[in-house]
Amino acid sequence: MKYMVYLVSDSTGITAERLAQSLLTQFHDVSFDIRTLRYVDTVEKVTAACRQINESGQQAKNKPIVISTLVDGQLRAQMQQADAHILDVMGAFLTPLEEIIGQQATPSVGLTHGQGAQDTYKQRMDAVTYALLHDDGGVLSHYDRADIVLIGVSRSGKTPTSVYLAMQYGLYVANYPLVEDDLNSGELPAVLQPHHDKLFALTILPERLHNIREERRPGSTYASLAQCQHEVRQAEALFRRQRLQVCDVSRLSVEEIATRILQQLGFPSRALHP
Amino acid sequence: MKYMVYLVSDSTGITAERLAQSLLTQFHDVSFDIRTLRYVDTVEKVTAACRQINESGQQAKNKPIVISTLVDGQLRAQMQQADAHILDVMGAFLTPLEEIIGQQATPSVGLTHGQGAQDTYKQRMDAVTYALLHDDGGVLSHYDRADIVLIGVSRSGKTPTSVYLAMQYGLYVANYPLVEDDLNSGELPAVLQPHHDKLFALTILPERLHNIREERRPGSTYASLAQCQHEVRQAEALFRRQRLQVCDVSRLSVEEIATRILQQLGFPSRALHP
Repeated sequence: MKYMVYLVSDSTGITAERLAQSLLTQFHDVSFDIRTLRYVDTVEKVTAACRQINESGQQAKNKPIVISTLVDGQLRAQMQQADAHILDVMGAFLTPLEEIIGQQATPSVGLTHGQGAQDTYKQRMDAVTYALLHDDGGVLSHYDRADIVLIGVSRSGKTPTSVYLAMQYGLYVANYPLVEDDLNSGELPAVLQPHHDKLFALTILPERLHNIREERRPGSTYASLAQCQHEVRQAEALFRRQRLQVCDVSRLSVEEIATRILQQLGFPSRALHP
Repeated sequence: MKYMVYLVSDSTGITAERLAQSLLTQFHDVSFDIRTLRYVDTVEKVTAACRQINESGQQAKNKPIVISTLVDGQLRAQMQQADAHILDVMGAFLTPLEEIIGQQATPSVGLTHGQGAQDTYKQRMDAVTYALLHDDGGVLSHYDRADIVLIGVSRSGKTPTSVYLAMQYGLYVANYPLVEDDLNSGELPAVLQPHHDKLFALTILPERLHNIREERRPGSTYASLAQCQHEVRQAEALFRRQRLQVCDVSRLSVEEIATRILQQLGFPSRALHP
């Protein structure tokens, strides 16, 4: 069974995309062809969107599904004219919220990702710059500024996790790769010792690490299963001795790794992104 | 007026965070104190969440608001016991979707950001690696692989935009900073010429660029308003001569820049993230 799904937004479409993924992954045997229609913020653009949706519906067996995050009441009413199953997100939740708060919402498009919350936005962008500068053990002297320092063997997922935490939560995340010398010494590298309370360790199954490294340097000693087993064993022993918080990333996505770190380190879990 | 808002999720909480921001920014005069409770995926954890919510409600003037993306029916029913205003996202949309599709949803927690869609996930992570390697004109020879090459003067937002497009949409995005020599020559740099159809230009108001550069190198020629005006004028003339697509980033967030690029380049707007 197959459905066309249109995500219609007057802004970036990011909220609609997230929500759609959460909802549609609950239906395993159905395939969805998802299209995002962004910046649909005028009567003319809604008309064009409806036309596109109707035309695709005529060619398909099933009526298309529309997940709309349109805010403006007039545009939402107009969207209802499309020959599709329409899930109106703002309609479903704004009205109850208005009743709870006892106040009318003041429609304003695109505030979610706009620079409205300037300080938060600036913090996120500064944090991304920081993550890139402090990737892979770079510019060691600035760990003072770090909120979190990720450590782990090469290719254990430190870089994407650092960037994700910076981008989404405005956290300053450095990362430090444990190399042969660090692992053989059995000690925490000297540069990390003053920052013990900021450390968070990533580990990974040797077999998974082997697969990841093979893609980068096929047939190398670096990628061999024996080397991966050796490094992971030494790294995990170090993490235990240092009593570090550890996350096994083998079966986790970057979003899951990032949010588990927030959880385990007890970050206030405040949604920082604007 | 002030409300505590709890975002309750059985997984990363990202969907709830996005939705909450979209909804709550529609109420301008109300302040919201937002907490995310992640990985609430057992009866015990829902009990603990309810207790936390009830306690904070007793100390506050207004009853807390809960935005829940819990999937499991039993946990959702249990959540309703909290002494709070409860917006049940899955309840609101899964039932209509079940009727549309004529099939029961098969609750599965955390598939949204899980590695379920392995290929998509791998593409996103590879794209992040690519974006970091090709940041700021690095490793020039690999533009063949790029989906998009961003160009613009220094500090015009190329790096965060590249990383965001990679992370969220799995696109291979390189970026090239236009330096003095490029701008004086008035020509497209030779390395970019074979890739004209992948180019996308970012521009920015000189005053805004000046502010951004001042933070990095206060009082420098590089940051001076005159230098910023000069560079932006030359860059925009080049973009016009080359008939490039241009986005003025002065008042946009990285999410807005990224999605406008997708829109203007006519990318199929398929939501790629898993």
